Parts: sequence; structure tokens; C-alpha cells
Amino acid sequence: MTSDSAPLPPSLVPLITDEQAPPRVQAVFDDIRRTRGTDYVNHIWRALANDPAQLEMTWAQVKQVMAPGALNPLVKELLYVAVSVVNNCSYCVHTHTHAARAKGMTDAMQGELLQVIALASQTNRLAVALQVPVDERYRGPATA
Amino acid sequence: MTSDSAPLPPSLVPLITDEQAPPRVQAVFDDIRRTRGTDYVNHIWRALANDPAQLEMTWAQVKQVMAPGALNPLVKELLYVAVSVVNNCSYCVHTHTHAARAKGMTDAMQGELLQVIALASQTNRLAVALQVPVDERYRGPATA
Amino acid sequence: MTSDSAPLPPSLVPLITDEQAPPRVQAVFDDIRRTRGTDYVNHIWRALANDPAQLEMTWAQVKQVMAPGALNPLVKELLYVAVSVVNNCSYCVHTHTHAARAKGMTDAMQGELLQVIALASQTNRLAVALQVPVDERYRGPATA
Amino acid sequence: MTSDSAPLPPSLVPLITDEQAPPRVQAVFDDIRRTRGTDYVNHIWRALANDPAQLEMTWAQVKQVMAPGALNPLVKELLYVAVSVVNNCSYCVHTHTHAARAKGMTDAMQGELLQVIALASQTNRLAVALQVPVDERYRGPATA
Amino acid sequence: MTSDSAPLPPSLVPLITDEQAPPRVQAVFDDIRRTRGTDYVNHIWRALANDPAQLEMTWAQVKQVMAPGALNPLVKELLYVAVSVVNNCSYCVHTHTHAARAKGMTDAMQGELLQVIALASQTNRLAVALQVPVDERYRGPATA
Amino acid sequence: MTSDSAPLPPSLVPLITDEQAPPRVQAVFDDIRRTRGTDYVNHIWRALANDPAQLEMTWAQVKQVMAPGALNPLVKELLYVAVSVVNNCSYCVHTHTHAARAKGMTDAMQGELLQVIALASQTNRLAVALQVPVDERYRGPATA
Repeated sequence: MTSDSAPLPPSLVPLITDEQAPPRVQAVFDDIRRTRGTDYVNHIWRALANDPAQLEMTWAQVKQVMAPGALNPLVKELLYVAVSVVNNCSYCVHTHTHAARAKGMTDAMQGELLQVIALASQTNRLAVALQVPVDERYRGPATA
Repeated sequence: MTSDSAPLPPSLVPLITDEQAPPRVQAVFDDIRRTRGTDYVNHIWRALANDPAQLEMTWAQVKQVMAPGALNPLVKELLYVAVSVVNNCSYCVHTHTHAARAKGMTDAMQGELLQVIALASQTNRLAVALQVPVDERYRGPATA
Repeated sequence: MTSDSAPLPPSLVPLITDEQAPPRVQAVFDDIRRTRGTDYVNHIWRALANDPAQLEMTWAQVKQVMAPGALNPLVKELLYVAVSVVNNCSYCVHTHTHAARAKGMTDAMQGELLQVIALASQTNRLAVALQVPVDERYRGPATA
Repeated sequence: MTSDSAPLPPSLVPLITDEQAPPRVQAVFDDIRRTRGTDYVNHIWRALANDPAQLEMTWAQVKQVMAPGALNPLVKELLYVAVSVVNNCSYCVHTHTHAARAKGMTDAMQGELLQVIALASQTNRLAVALQVPVDERYRGPATA
Repeated sequence: MTSDSAPLPPSLVPLITDEQAPPRVQAVFDDIRRTRGTDYVNHIWRALANDPAQLEMTWAQVKQVMAPGALNPLVKELLYVAVSVVNNCSYCVHTHTHAARAKGMTDAMQGELLQVIALASQTNRLAVALQVPVDERYRGPATA
Repeated sequence: MTSDSAPLPPSLVPLITDEQAPPRVQAVFDDIRRTRGTDYVNHIWRALANDPAQLEMTWAQVKQVMAPGALNPLVKELLYVAVSVVNNCSYCVHTHTHAARAKGMTDAMQGELLQVIALASQTNRLAVALQVPVDERYRGPATA
């Protein structure tokens, strides 16, 4: 499946190859290929394929949520990177940083993305450390 | 400082009022008011004011990082909300959600912001649970 | 919606009442009532109802995932509590601890649930602090 | 200690071999072997052995908490995996997933375990993002 | 148990009063009072008392770990605050910040404590976002 | 840049060598070398150098915060390790554990550091799991 010169530990489940995929899994792999316009299927899908129900559910949600909407796909991808960094998912940080690049993230954007992540993480901890009460004006529903 | 009808626990340090603020703190409060075009100074700054060095350092960074750049202020604010949710800072989620609204976040944008946070948190945990190895093609530096 | 004697801050979106619910939301509320055999609809659903797509997606997933399967509903609920504690979601810890009780969690089970959460959180940090390498025998896929 | 073909970075402390173990450490290693019915002692214990007091304290707690009780050992192991995933301890996810397999976790159970972790992580973030207040009925002590 | 003017939600288990405490719990409460030189027993102990085994195990560990050693009690308390902030335990941040004050934490120390927490949280996220590989010289065991 | 026998995945940005560094970056590298009395510049700085503004901002903060003050440099380093463990930054745990050693952390201190991290992580989760309300006496500002 991979010819990494620097071997990584294998995942805790086998990565399902095209040959091993039952029809239900094959259908999702096909849809991933069509939707993304590439023949390559990421490791995460091959790992999730061990549980076809989870694979279908996750892919359906990814397809729906990451489609263009009120937020454009690049902004959604930047948000995905930010969440993955704070949740500390190394796999996700790698793949979504590359995805953001593919969707147009420039060096300058990447720099600012990291600056916001770093700044927010810092002020998040300060507000928790001081147990700052929410200002009255920010307590009700936020309306446009 | 506040007339909340639902009393919140006070913070672990006093919230410094304008009257109590030494000149160094007053200078930061003034700059916050000028920069944001409002007379209101958020609780977090009044809490940080107990350590003028931290107040100056944090405000300087916020001012620099959140200014318009390759990413516009609304996108930066959405990222701030996403990071604050994952870091689980209640104070920050409240204030930055309101700030995002003030910068133009619509209902539809808020919905999609939450969808991405929820989706990413879910796939982050799956990738960690399965210990999926990074695909060879996503391992090198991501370039534009 | 609530008559709490100890007022809590309202959520960052309005909690949608039955009267305000459009048909698409009403359909989900009805299914929640039917599935759970209660007339009460939890706050989280009324909050999610501000984005009907997210409400439908989340409820469909909850209904599918929490149904009886290879793991019984009580075990799933205990896992839900454990995840919610570590993710530090106060709302979720409250509601799912009550749900676990409703599904049969005894005092003894609750005690052991907490013991495992506490123990694992402790050893998790120790393994990270020492950066212990995975034993060769635990690196391949785990098979039954 | 290991003949991994893919070398992993060593831990931040030496892994104490049987030959290096002082009597106090040897006693714990012996008890681990007896209790688990295997000659193999996991890396984590060899790392913790650098501080015999911590080793004894941790092992005593593991032995007591993971013993059969109101919850059976497999359920406890599933909870351990869930907590380790959310705390993001790679070492622990590996070892406890293998331990769960050894205690009887089937493919179907593993699939459902991951589904609950993914679902809960998603709704945890949504409840935090929306700052949903706890329903009055879930605020008091949860009783059986 | 408390006369808070601002009512807080009760905990998910009853707080065990002295009158309700069985002998095994009473023995721990007595030891807490003796060790700390105060008649007051914190809420956490009254909550843990619902599971006497957990209460005994936790108190024994607290007593042993927080005693003077190579690190003095104030340094240990500062570490406790730092961990509690990052783990985001509001109860623990409150109680251990007060405990640090009682053990001699000055305003200046508190300021520097927060500065380190904020700085480290920031650089932690940056190193994860960039997936920086560990320098060769920092990969082996750290020796004095 | 490195001659690791066990190849690690490269970071998501190039590590800037001295030859590639523009004057603004070179100035920071020089200051790092002067301040730390070593010719070696850690990978993190070479990664951050892709965004000179972030590099300058981060180094200025590190230099200011980690200088001797009310807390001595070793205590600050121990706090840095504790925060990095809980934030789960593998790179940071490695480098700051080595830094703590270089500043005088003994085996006994390291043992106690880990004991406090483990204990606090455990009680943090217990307090969250039980949703223990803050004792009235610990709710106001903590004063010396």
C-alpha cells in the first residue's frame, strides 16, 4: 500500500485494499474518487473501511459538510486544520494542511492561520486560569 | 462592574476598574477603546491588568494577529471560535462568537462553522483511535 | 422553557420551542419523542434546531449509534460519559450520567466508571511524559 | 529490549531491564507477571520503574481498578481505550486496544466502540460551541 | 453544606456530610483535617466519599505526592494549577489557586505562572501545527 | 540538518538553514545563540522561521517569560514540561524535559514532577465527572 522509506507503525486495523473491499466499501471508494477527481484513496478511508457502516456515515458527512456553502471550501479547510491541531491529531494535521494547500492556501495564509491558533490557545488558557466571568453583554444569544 | 441578574462566580483575580488602573494599564485600555471603536473594555483585559506585562504582551499580539492580512478579520474570528471550542474555553466561546457576529457571521456561516468543528472532532478521534499512518504523499512539506 | 431557580446563562443560540419549530425540525422532535418514549426534548436538540441540517444529521447518527448492537445500550452510555468527561463537556456529562442511570447504571458501576477514567487519565499522562515507545508486539493490527 | 525493524525514538528515561531492577522493582515485575499470566512486562512498567514509588502506586491502582467488579474486565478495557483516545495517548491506544482484543473485543464491538467515541466527540463540541445550559431535570444528583 | 448566595448547580452525586459518613469515610475526613490543620473538608472529598474505595485511594495518593520532597510544596502546587488549567477543570483551578496562595504564591509568582502556561500552550500548538520532528540530540533519555 | 539513524517524517514546512535565512531571521537565530550560549538552533525555530513575524514574536516572548523572575528558571521549565505533557506536544515534551535536565532537574525532581502531573490529571477528571461545585470559600479572588 505504501513504499515509505521511513517505515511507520501500521494502524491498529488493516488498511483495506481495493481487492479486499466488499461492494459496499467499493461504492464509497468510487464516490471518493469521483468527488475528489483523483484515483488516490487516503489511508483513513481504508482504515474506516473495516466498519462499512462507519465508512458510509463518515464519508456522507464529509461530503455534505465540506461542500461549498456560506463558507468557501478553503475557509472550511483552514477550520479543519485548526480543529485538528487543537485536538492533536497528527494524521489529520498532515492531510488537511496538504488539502488546504491544494485548495489555495498561500504561505501568508498559512502563517496567519498558525498565528491565530497560537494566539487563541494562549488566551484560552489565560481566561481559564483566571476563571474570568462572561461579560453580561456576551451572555445572550449572538444574533447577526 | 456588572449588574448581571444571574450572579456568576467572580474571577480568581479582581477585575481592574478604570479608577484602579495605573498609567501603564490605562494606556492599554485606551488603545483597546481606540482600536475597537467602543468604550467597553472586556472582562479579560480587566483580569489580565493585574499583570501589566502580560496585558501589554497579549494585547500587542491580539492587535497584530487579528488585523486584516491574507485572511480577512471574519475568517480569523471564525478560526478563533473553532480553537476556543476545542480548547473548551467558555469565556472565549461566548466573546468570540459575539465578535464573529459583529464582523458579519450570518446564521448560515455559524451553522457551517459548527458543522466543520463537529466533523473534524469526530474524524480526529477516529484517526487517533485507529492510529492511521500518514500517507507517504502527505508527509513532506506542504507547498502552495 | 425552564424554571430553574438558579438561573444559568442562556445558550449562544435561541432554544427552539415547539411553536417555533418548522416542519423539518418538528419531524425530528417527533422522532426523538417516539424513540425515547418521553415527551421531553433536551436542550441540545432545541439548540441544534437552529440549523435543521445539523439537527437531522446528528439525530440520525445518535439514533443509529446508540441502538443495541454488539455492545448493549448501557455500555455505550458509559462510554459516552467517559468521552464527555475527557472532552470536558459539562452539559454532556450531566445529561449522559443521568441517561446512564436511566439505563441501569448502579452506584457500584458509577464508582468503577470513575475509577477507570481517573486511572486511565493518569497513565495516559505518564506515557506521554515519558514518551514510551510502543512495544513491538502491540504495533501491528489488533485481531480478535 | 526490542528488535523493532522500524526503530522508534527511545523514551525519555531508560527502560529498566530485569537485570537492572532493584528488589523493589523486581517485586512489582513479578506481580505483574503473576497477575497477567505472561512473562512479558510492558514498556510502560519498565519506564515507570525509574521511580519505584510511582511504579508501585500505579501498579497497585491498575490491579485494583481493572479487576472484575460491577463492570466486567472487557467493559473496563473498552472504557480505557475510549479515555486514551480522547486524551490522545498513542502508546495507550495501542496497548489497550490489544488488551481489549485479548479480553474478547470482537470486530463488531470495536466498530461500535469507535462509533460512540466519534459521536460523543462530535456532540461534545457542539454543546460547548453553543454553550447549551443543562436542563433543569439533569442538574441534581443522578440516582439509580 | 453551603450558603452560597449565587446558587451553583449541585454535583452529580450528593456531597456526603459528616453525619452521613460511614466510619471508613469518617477516617479519611479526620486524616484530611489533621494533615491540613483545618476543620474544613473540601467538596471534592465529600463527593468522592460516595465511593469509599476511590476516596481512600485518592487521598492516600494526594497525601504522598504533595508532601515535601525534592520539590517543595509551593512548586508542586504551581504544577497542580498548571495541569488543572490545561485539563480545564474549573473546580480544580479555583481550589488549587487558593491553595497556592496559602502556600506562599505572591502576585508576581502568579503572574509568571500564567505567563508560562500561556507561552507553552502557544508553542505547543505551533509545534503540533508544523509537525516539527524532534531534534536528534533530544531524542534519547534525558540525564542529569 | 540531521543525521538521525531512525528517520522521522519531515515537518510540514521546510526547516530553514542558516544559509537560507534572510537577515530578519538571521538576527533572531543570532540572539538565540547568544542568549542560550550554544551554537545549536532547535528545529522549532527553523520551522517558525518560515514566518519571520511569528518567529520574532515567539522568540521575544520566550526570552521575556523564561528569564529569571519571581520563579527561577528551573521551576519555569518544570511548568513548561507539565503544560506540554497535558497539551500532548511530543516535540515539546522532548525538548523541555532535556532543558529541565540542563537547568538542574534531578531524578528525584523528575519523579515528583510526573507524580504531580499524574495525580492532578486524575483528580481533574474526577471533579469534572462529578461536576463538583466550587466551595464558597474558593470562589472569590485568591489573595496572598
